Amino acid sequence: MTQLLVLYNTPTDPAAFQRYYFETHTPLAKKIPGLRSLTISDGPIQALAGEAPFLIASLAFDSMEDLQAALASPEGKASADDLANFASGGVTLLMYNSNIA
Amino acid sequence: MTQLLVLYNTPTDPAAFQRYYFETHTPLAKKIPGLRSLTISDGPIQALAGEAPFLIASLAFDSMEDLQAALASPEGKASADDLANFASGGVTLLMYNSNIA
Repeated sequence: MTQLLVLYNTPTDPAAFQRYYFETHTPLAKKIPGLRSLTISDGPIQALAGEAPFLIASLAFDSMEDLQAALASPEGKASADDLANFASGGVTLLMYNSNIA
Repeated sequence: MTQLLVLYNTPTDPAAFQRYYFETHTPLAKKIPGLRSLTISDGPIQALAGEAPFLIASLAFDSMEDLQAALASPEGKASADDLANFASGGVTLLMYNSNIA
């Protein structure tokens, strides 16, 4: 399995972020080709160590090739371009393969 | 679903970290009561934005209550105490509920 992990820092207007994220960005992200699942944090994120982001989204793909193709697709580009419209606190985007231990 | 997301920064000795992580820490973590799955990054993590950690582990639980009980258990404490033995680059530990979109 290949993951695209998206960690959003606290935005300037959390209520506006939430609204935009669920009403506009999530529907765009769900159109990304090859996306197997989209899992989104629900409620506050607590940090036991380090700093807590405001929201975490995890996008699963079958392989790194599928994720690369997804990012290069029109839907992937639309999703990436849309970040500038609401991710005012900044964002970390991480790509990696993962295994169940 | 409730997640405990563990992001390890790059350690001082990556090869020693990897060895210890898979030989010693993972077996400890797998004993944590209520753990539904343990998913571990495999190979390098690429950052498209922000900074890449060295390794990411995602521990899934049925609920925040289960995760709190897990952290308070002897096995959870042993796992947490073990971090000091290998996580030389520092670690971010995040707890949150999540939903599939």
